[in-house]
Amino acid sequence: MTNTLYLPEIREMLAENNAVELQEFCQALHPARTAEFMEGLRADESWNVLKHADNGSRVEIFAYFDPSKQVEVIETADEHDVATLLERLPNDDLVDLLDHVSPDRVATLLPLLPNAMRRDVLRLRAYPEDSAGAVMTTEFARLKETDTVRQALADVSQQAEGLETIYYLYVIDEEDHLRGTVSARQLVSAMGHPDVKIVDLMERDVVSVEAEDDQEEVLHKVARYDLMAIPVVDHEHHMLGIVTHDDVIDVAREEATEDAHRVGGIDPLEHGYLETKLPLLIWKRGVWLVIFFCGALLTTVALQEHESTLASVTWLVFFIPLVNSSGGNTGNQSATLVITALATGDITFRDGWKVIRREFLMGVALGGILAVGAFGTSMVFDEPGWLGSTVVATSLFLVVLCGTAAGTLLPLAFHRLGLDPALMSNPLVASLIDFLGIAIYLNVALLLLPKIAGG
Amino acid sequence: MTNTLYLPEIREMLAENNAVELQEFCQALHPARTAEFMEGLRADESWNVLKHADNGSRVEIFAYFDPSKQVEVIETADEHDVATLLERLPNDDLVDLLDHVSPDRVATLLPLLPNAMRRDVLRLRAYPEDSAGAVMTTEFARLKETDTVRQALADVSQQAEGLETIYYLYVIDEEDHLRGTVSARQLVSAMGHPDVKIVDLMERDVVSVEAEDDQEEVLHKVARYDLMAIPVVDHEHHMLGIVTHDDVIDVAREEATEDAHRVGGIDPLEHGYLETKLPLLIWKRGVWLVIFFCGALLTTVALQEHESTLASVTWLVFFIPLVNSSGGNTGNQSATLVITALATGDITFRDGWKVIRREFLMGVALGGILAVGAFGTSMVFDEPGWLGSTVVATSLFLVVLCGTAAGTLLPLAFHRLGLDPALMSNPLVASLIDFLGIAIYLNVALLLLPKIAGG
Repeated sequence: MTNTLYLPEIREMLAENNAVELQEFCQALHPARTAEFMEGLRADESWNVLKHADNGSRVEIFAYFDPSKQVEVIETADEHDVATLLERLPNDDLVDLLDHVSPDRVATLLPLLPNAMRRDVLRLRAYPEDSAGAVMTTEFARLKETDTVRQALADVSQQAEGLETIYYLYVIDEEDHLRGTVSARQLVSAMGHPDVKIVDLMERDVVSVEAEDDQEEVLHKVARYDLMAIPVVDHEHHMLGIVTHDDVIDVAREEATEDAHRVGGIDPLEHGYLETKLPLLIWKRGVWLVIFFCGALLTTVALQEHESTLASVTWLVFFIPLVNSSGGNTGNQSATLVITALATGDITFRDGWKVIRREFLMGVALGGILAVGAFGTSMVFDEPGWLGSTVVATSLFLVVLCGTAAGTLLPLAFHRLGLDPALMSNPLVASLIDFLGIAIYLNVALLLLPKIAGG
Repeated sequence: MTNTLYLPEIREMLAENNAVELQEFCQALHPARTAEFMEGLRADESWNVLKHADNGSRVEIFAYFDPSKQVEVIETADEHDVATLLERLPNDDLVDLLDHVSPDRVATLLPLLPNAMRRDVLRLRAYPEDSAGAVMTTEFARLKETDTVRQALADVSQQAEGLETIYYLYVIDEEDHLRGTVSARQLVSAMGHPDVKIVDLMERDVVSVEAEDDQEEVLHKVARYDLMAIPVVDHEHHMLGIVTHDDVIDVAREEATEDAHRVGGIDPLEHGYLETKLPLLIWKRGVWLVIFFCGALLTTVALQEHESTLASVTWLVFFIPLVNSSGGNTGNQSATLVITALATGDITFRDGWKVIRREFLMGVALGGILAVGAFGTSMVFDEPGWLGSTVVATSLFLVVLCGTAAGTLLPLAFHRLGLDPALMSNPLVASLIDFLGIAIYLNVALLLLPKIAGG
């Protein structure tokens, strides 16, 4: 929500170039709030306001701008001012940001950054998208095993200023191997014994991820072990960086959105909906729509096969959507339950049989309920009559059973094959059910309706 | 994944009642790993192992057991031992746990807890499910404005032991009002100036939530402001507790699952899939299935209205699934994109027009592609011919347009009305499109096919 409350005042301060008030405005509030108040301003206006903030709050406020505004500022403002601003961003955030800046501009800016930072940025950009390496920051608090609590505290108080989090302090040996961790809490509560050695304080069994691991792995471990941050190491257990809590929450949301998109029959978007170019979006949707289209063609063929039946008993057509959508919706529900339960680790493959049994019982129950409803309603129509209504009800029951079966087995199978169960998107299940539905419905009709059997 | 690697050894230690090795086993690893190794053990076995752990690691290991095992231990083990265990749990976790324990057992255990804790538990249980109050813990680090850095550090090092997080220290006045926060980082980096007053160090503009706020609000603020923990206050801004990062990650996953269930046409489950009793699950699914069933009935009626048309031109039936599913799937995609974008705050209502314009263009593009495909395929079938194929293609194009329109407008409208856009579940959109699809398709046919027009 844009907060336009103070826009006029801010613009006035800018017009008067009222340094005092602009400074005051930049310091008074939580940087995120300050950024909100500036949402209505153009990028250049926002930048002119930020010029009055001290370096510290300038970068903090900037960090809360919309990505689009951040990019515009970076691309338009004076390159040296921008460089001094970027220097103070956590380097994982900087990397994400530069992904959206024009390559030429990045080329001009990188040389203006301190060597160490430039090296880190280049290295981080080299990691595959959605890998632990790509979301980690290389800035973390380091300790030596030989340090005493006193030294460590002094040491950390030096480092703290420039760090994103000091909740965990990482104990590193000469070859940069990760040996253990000490939490800020442990350190602070050990203040009473300043001569204790870190080696005697540290947790040796450290949960970590490798730089190439998928960010989903990061999410699972952080959630499983309730961590504030997780260290990222290479194959030889050299410490490379850490992934901090804020990035983990973002990952959790990204992964959830990805799954939702897959389930919705869309190839997941890398960026936001509005940032995604139309042609790309059309492609990501079109591909699946064409696949579903082919699925639906099967149904068309199946219907044509039964042309004579349909011709002799027209009313059969009326109930096709009822039978198919009931089966599709139940299958859709089963697929959703299984996919989400697998995604949250609520069920694993070894629960497979339990899940299948439950879904079967549920299919019987739900199919029964809907079949009764179908029988009742089709009795209301004059044509079907007792026999016809029996055909509708029986088929609907069977189709619902197929629906739950397909919706349960397909995601489980995909999970088993190491594929993303969410790929078993609802439309895919639905079009499969459509096809089966027609086959079941019309064969039951052939079986039970004398008019056809006779004809 | 159960880790059965050491089960025999553990069982052997238990049989021999080998205190030394069992102690060693409980201390050696990260508590979460220890818990994993015990996954194969029965609740009573696990408890017998835990008896050999010191109080500290006992509760830590216990905290990583499956909820079901935790509950079984609480309900079966000696009540006094259990009480001493529960005392050491963060009280928000304790509250969640007791929700699954039989009321009688809770009644026996509560009196055994320290008064302060019992009061907190009872108060926390009073908050509505999914509210900030229900997920907060009442244990947090407190400071006074008048403290110096030196006093604060000493003070915190005292409190730290018993606290879940000390990342933020909360500055509270005599009447328990929240006045400001100091981060552990600030405090540690201020060690150089031990006589500075907290009041000069603290951040006054604190982001907080109220106890009655929905947990989704907590998630949004924590993500928006990149917080490690967020304070919970009452209407008079009295400090009640904090919600910590680990609970926020859980909330993020819960909310995502809730949305996924709604989109899948299921009333969201409070507990895991396997913990939910079958009858409840049948109800949560059945309700929606019946609603969708009624939606499908409209289509049945629509079809019956056009009985004569269908009777005179049987082949029209073959392409009904093709036309309808194409429209349904495209609408499904639009709904998914809009719902997820709204959920992540990627778009807000003010982007409405932009979204509608994009989806319209997308509908035209996708509808065009599929229409061409439909024309081609229906030419393959002998009956429709040029004119018939034009009917199929034109209807499909129009239905896809309706699909994107419905999939875009309905979630936006629901969001506008303050309802959860995810309620515009895919099946609901689909059954709407089915109905519109039939109407459009058969009317286009009436319009273009002389055979009917004539008949």
